[in-house]
Amino acid sequence: MSKQLIQIGHGSGGRLSNALIREVFLKHFHNLFLEELSDSARIQLNGKEIAYTTDSYVIDPIFFPGGDIGQLAVSGTVNDLCVSGAIPKYLSAGMIIEEGFPIDDLDNIAASMAKEAQNAGILIVTGDTKVVKRGQCDKLFINTSGVGIVPKGRHHLKNRESIKAGDKIIVTGTLGDHAIAILAARENLSLDENILSDAAPLTSMIEGILEHPENVCYMRDITRGGLATILVETCKKRSYGMLIREKNLPVKQSVRAVCELYGFDPIYLANEGKIMMVVKPDKAQYIIEILRKHKLGKNSIIIGEVTDKHPGRVVMQSVIGGKRIVDMLSGEMLPRIC
Amino acid sequence: MSKQLIQIGHGSGGRLSNALIREVFLKHFHNLFLEELSDSARIQLNGKEIAYTTDSYVIDPIFFPGGDIGQLAVSGTVNDLCVSGAIPKYLSAGMIIEEGFPIDDLDNIAASMAKEAQNAGILIVTGDTKVVKRGQCDKLFINTSGVGIVPKGRHHLKNRESIKAGDKIIVTGTLGDHAIAILAARENLSLDENILSDAAPLTSMIEGILEHPENVCYMRDITRGGLATILVETCKKRSYGMLIREKNLPVKQSVRAVCELYGFDPIYLANEGKIMMVVKPDKAQYIIEILRKHKLGKNSIIIGEVTDKHPGRVVMQSVIGGKRIVDMLSGEMLPRIC
Repeated sequence: MSKQLIQIGHGSGGRLSNALIREVFLKHFHNLFLEELSDSARIQLNGKEIAYTTDSYVIDPIFFPGGDIGQLAVSGTVNDLCVSGAIPKYLSAGMIIEEGFPIDDLDNIAASMAKEAQNAGILIVTGDTKVVKRGQCDKLFINTSGVGIVPKGRHHLKNRESIKAGDKIIVTGTLGDHAIAILAARENLSLDENILSDAAPLTSMIEGILEHPENVCYMRDITRGGLATILVETCKKRSYGMLIREKNLPVKQSVRAVCELYGFDPIYLANEGKIMMVVKPDKAQYIIEILRKHKLGKNSIIIGEVTDKHPGRVVMQSVIGGKRIVDMLSGEMLPRIC
Repeated sequence: MSKQLIQIGHGSGGRLSNALIREVFLKHFHNLFLEELSDSARIQLNGKEIAYTTDSYVIDPIFFPGGDIGQLAVSGTVNDLCVSGAIPKYLSAGMIIEEGFPIDDLDNIAASMAKEAQNAGILIVTGDTKVVKRGQCDKLFINTSGVGIVPKGRHHLKNRESIKAGDKIIVTGTLGDHAIAILAARENLSLDENILSDAAPLTSMIEGILEHPENVCYMRDITRGGLATILVETCKKRSYGMLIREKNLPVKQSVRAVCELYGFDPIYLANEGKIMMVVKPDKAQYIIEILRKHKLGKNSIIIGEVTDKHPGRVVMQSVIGGKRIVDMLSGEMLPRIC
């Protein structure tokens, strides 16, 4: 990678991000915790298992339909913890603020963070504030890290080991809402149906499912890179592949319309309040029923299954019957989506 | 604070930073952990005590005499943990990178982080990478958060409760080295003596002292805002004050010369590898001896003592015998020093 420069795509969550992480960070920071490349690490502290994660939020605009950067910075990190099977407990907050930023806006954002932390049942216990001159950052960036408790004996729901051919693939709601809400705000799009970001902490939605964690093989929240990227990451270098059915993918009509206008594919669009899970085939319907009882999971649906027919690959059966290989996002459709 | 805008001084670590944290963040995030306003929180996880902290690093230039932003991002967060009495264990790393940043530079910075983590005996276990367009951030910002184990029964060394009149105040080496190294790099100063940043993890320097934590009342690493700011914070609203002697303050000759040239006072300058500690009077000399055996503590010295004569105030006896009240940094002398 020498003599190369960072491109916007290196932050996409897709192919370039993956290469950068492997070729720069993993090369130097090699340790067992990082190597699984999941969004949260399982660490040992005083003989107990803890989940630990971090994310920086650089979303533009910082106030958007359905939320703001503060709400996102809390719910995004909470979701990274809870989809690993942990119970989120504590958060840190690091703010980088541009000189001239209105203190009233900062106050509103801090209020959002506090409200979302309360919703998610966690405490923001440590923080840091840096200020840079005008033009040295764009308004406000927030980093949050989070720690959670892993109940004894609970397997890591981001560990791919337990996935087998025949398992069902579920998504917990409509794809791309967050990305299209941000795009609509940036471009002043007027849509028939007002699309709001789906950013929300998902702890309570999956609480019921985690009472029987043995039913769930794997869980990821759908963020940067979209559904496609996490499905490809899940199958990479494995003895199984995945078959998903386009007709089952839940996409709002207005999201679909914007995608057609901009040439986007909803499977690459970011959500901030949706999960993809791989579950035992005989429990799939039961899990769907639990999810649908929660207001954030009411559009949950089985979108396909794990197969041994094309190991390492994700294949999508299109509405008209053809099949195509699904790959990771290779560039970046919408930078600064989170 | 309504209708006000963020100023550079809000990130100084001094008076404006304090006001911002209290009037915006503490107002919303109120909880017992945050209220002590120390640089790391003591939290309970699975019935065990854990230290947890975060810092964002926005230093400019990112490569400077004696270090780089990666080394600083590891040692700074390690120091926040160890001065609280904890044993640093795990770190997170969140990178915000400007489009066009050279990947070779990123590689060098990741290598520094890995080396410094190894020096400090900790692991970087989780990370995140965001990329923003040219002009939306200045090269590279790094957030690290850290968790550490608190040995059973060890009191919080950032808790002011145990400080009493008569206690001695120690600094572990020369003041302002980091700030002046950064300034010299920015302004291309040619100095008689080459000043290097003192950024370093201090875990091993204080290891010996923490074998008898009962000798130490309080400990803080000297960073933004300098020695003056942390002394003032330590005395604020307390029944004790502090008297320090200017003649005992360790300052390198060339640092002093640059201070005279720029009108800076070394007590407001940032270090990144020095500690201020308040210790029991009868153990002060013993602690100085232990510190001086370590290469990072060889200039350790007693600079003054805790007194009940001027409660809540820090007073400095000048070289020529006069006394003056020391206050917090009110503006910002050197932005983006860390």
